[in-house]
Amino acid sequence: MKSIQSLVLIGSGNVASLMAEAFKDVGLDIWGVYSKTTENAKILAEKINVNVFKSVAEIPTDADAYLLAVNESALPVLIKELEIIEGILMHTSGSVGLDVFPENVSRSAVFYPLQTFSKSRQIDFSTVPILIESKDNQILEELMVLGAKISNNVKIADSVQRKQLHLAAVFACNFSNFMFHIAEELLKENNLDFELLKPLIIETTAKLNEISPLEAQTGPAIRNNKKILNKHLKMLENHPEYQNIYRLISDQIKKLKSV
Amino acid sequence: MKSIQSLVLIGSGNVASLMAEAFKDVGLDIWGVYSKTTENAKILAEKINVNVFKSVAEIPTDADAYLLAVNESALPVLIKELEIIEGILMHTSGSVGLDVFPENVSRSAVFYPLQTFSKSRQIDFSTVPILIESKDNQILEELMVLGAKISNNVKIADSVQRKQLHLAAVFACNFSNFMFHIAEELLKENNLDFELLKPLIIETTAKLNEISPLEAQTGPAIRNNKKILNKHLKMLENHPEYQNIYRLISDQIKKLKSV
Repeated sequence: MKSIQSLVLIGSGNVASLMAEAFKDVGLDIWGVYSKTTENAKILAEKINVNVFKSVAEIPTDADAYLLAVNESALPVLIKELEIIEGILMHTSGSVGLDVFPENVSRSAVFYPLQTFSKSRQIDFSTVPILIESKDNQILEELMVLGAKISNNVKIADSVQRKQLHLAAVFACNFSNFMFHIAEELLKENNLDFELLKPLIIETTAKLNEISPLEAQTGPAIRNNKKILNKHLKMLENHPEYQNIYRLISDQIKKLKSV
Repeated sequence: MKSIQSLVLIGSGNVASLMAEAFKDVGLDIWGVYSKTTENAKILAEKINVNVFKSVAEIPTDADAYLLAVNESALPVLIKELEIIEGILMHTSGSVGLDVFPENVSRSAVFYPLQTFSKSRQIDFSTVPILIESKDNQILEELMVLGAKISNNVKIADSVQRKQLHLAAVFACNFSNFMFHIAEELLKENNLDFELLKPLIIETTAKLNEISPLEAQTGPAIRNNKKILNKHLKMLENHPEYQNIYRLISDQIKKLKSV
């Protein structure tokens, strides 16, 4: 079976950088980095000691695969520019379907790591689910082997499933993180240390190893403790936006009981 | 210095149960359990091998301390019933002030464990912040020593600070958990396994050891990716309540950028 040995990176953001390092670590032959922001491409290229391609024309067309780790909105134009590429073109977006590739791009695929990537934060890819998609079974096999090099959790998922997962991930990760942000803001205003909440946050997540979020739900809303709910809304008077969030989510949590 | 050796438990819910076990483990002399729901009191009493007090009249008045781990709304009446108690009365609520105790109850205090407690879930108390409060410095010292028996993180906090912490905890724990619940619901509807999100959820929390929630914020809203935001709102058409939450939180996250 053919396997992916050589790789070109397109993009130089958090996803591109962290995946590049993971691929580098398992010995993949990375030919170079191309990015619209050449400065970022240079930083990444230096980090993993590879070439920078300063224009699309400079990108060699015969690498085994091309990782398109760019902003979703940049994909259509980029894909058009890369039409002459012979290797596998794979994008890394949860929310973009395989149909972003036009019919004439035959070797198209998706290689989506279901994780949150921040700068200055190392990722252990071994547990990260990698969701792969392609219409071509041989490409799927190649992606499976490629994914298995960095993760123990490679799964085939179609575009509909991947989009659903991405939407769920926005709630589970982006929105829960914003709840942590609000908590930190509220404590800061009162000169209280966010560190005090860390054991609570750790336990909130750790619980999920044993029980479902539904069973794990605690707090004044699930107990329908109107007195505390009203007290909290009053305390948020200077933050109408947090007050709205508090009210909306509490109203939903209250309904859990009657389910 | 006098130290708390004997304890009576009032309440038999999750907080009472888990704290009872923690105190039992460090060798405190637990005289017994009283709860309005005698059935629950029996279960807890059996678990930790202590007496059940079937009425307030049965409760001995001379234990060193009484842990009032009951629903906040039950506290005022309960405290009135326990007026003749000679030991320290300490409630465990984040959102109830010390002023729930009338002036004539001199030995009053708060012993608030900042944690989320679920049935069938063991708690390692050693990292749990215990926030203590009393007008009496000697009682504070006694609570400090008592707290230190089960936790490495005992802090003095007044009622205002404790209420602020509790409000922040609702966002950080209860609301983030509800985000996990929504994620699980959305996946279930599409026959996708919530397990797939666990590495993401773990990382979302783990990040906070290195960076603030503000720096950790990722997702379509912080990138102000209107196309994906609209796509997600459309996908939530059958869940107007989740759609509202999605819109409200995303609008707030978008504003982070301009801060």
